[in-house]
Amino acid sequence: MAKKATLPAVLVNSYVAALLTVSEGVGLTANFIKPEIVTGIKTSGSKAAAFIGIVGGPTHCTVALMADKISFAAYVSAFTGGMIEPNTDDSMSMSVLGEMTNMVSGRALIFAEMPGLDITPPQLFSGDNIKLSPTVKAHVNSFTLPFDVESGRIYLVVSVY
Amino acid sequence: MAKKATLPAVLVNSYVAALLTVSEGVGLTANFIKPEIVTGIKTSGSKAAAFIGIVGGPTHCTVALMADKISFAAYVSAFTGGMIEPNTDDSMSMSVLGEMTNMVSGRALIFAEMPGLDITPPQLFSGDNIKLSPTVKAHVNSFTLPFDVESGRIYLVVSVY
Repeated sequence: MAKKATLPAVLVNSYVAALLTVSEGVGLTANFIKPEIVTGIKTSGSKAAAFIGIVGGPTHCTVALMADKISFAAYVSAFTGGMIEPNTDDSMSMSVLGEMTNMVSGRALIFAEMPGLDITPPQLFSGDNIKLSPTVKAHVNSFTLPFDVESGRIYLVVSVY
Repeated sequence: MAKKATLPAVLVNSYVAALLTVSEGVGLTANFIKPEIVTGIKTSGSKAAAFIGIVGGPTHCTVALMADKISFAAYVSAFTGGMIEPNTDDSMSMSVLGEMTNMVSGRALIFAEMPGLDITPPQLFSGDNIKLSPTVKAHVNSFTLPFDVESGRIYLVVSVY
């Protein structure tokens, strides 16, 4: 009998598959840099970030999507067909990142096949050199999942409590 | 008969009361700048932020706590009795902000008296000039709640979907 996959593993795999699928859907190739998966948090400074919460039964997770300038521009252009200028100071442009995060999370929860999970809409942040800070607690499992998109970098950080 | 308070009003009032109580508990005076409450999002650039999600039944909320350098230092010093050097690049120091957010959220949910709400632990991040970006959607109500702490500024941003 197959070993039952753990919640972190299921969420990580589902989010990776979802990001690849959603990117492909808008004509972007995201390359998952599997050798650089990190247990814990390791992101380079980002320009834009989207956060969502996942709650359901005993499950408490947060997922952060962190984009540098190049990957942010690539997704904004791809999602809007070039109609919206990529600019992290512009809320229209930022809301594209929000929509993308919604789509990735929705798809990931379908892939995860975990009924009863409920998610918050994304909260969006912009700034310079944004870094996630690890929580100094033993019972938090964080995973940093890096993707190359064009010559930019995007991270998914999945934290399971 | 009193008019039933709406969810955003209850959450806003509860979070304001919780932040004041938790601050007082560590010997800090936070002044709620009531005239500067904004419907929508209006924060100045922050150095550190904590994000949590609230989910329960039809409720989907996010709360962000945004601190500038001075207010961050004030809370880290107050919570640790000066034992930890305030530094947004240091995870011990950042985790103080996480604990504070946990305490404020826990207290706020007690004040709100809304059974069945469940919250995610805080996701913490640091950077320069961090700003929240409003979501371009009609059914989102965001409220920016400013507080003066010593000569610094802290914001709570409550978004209800």
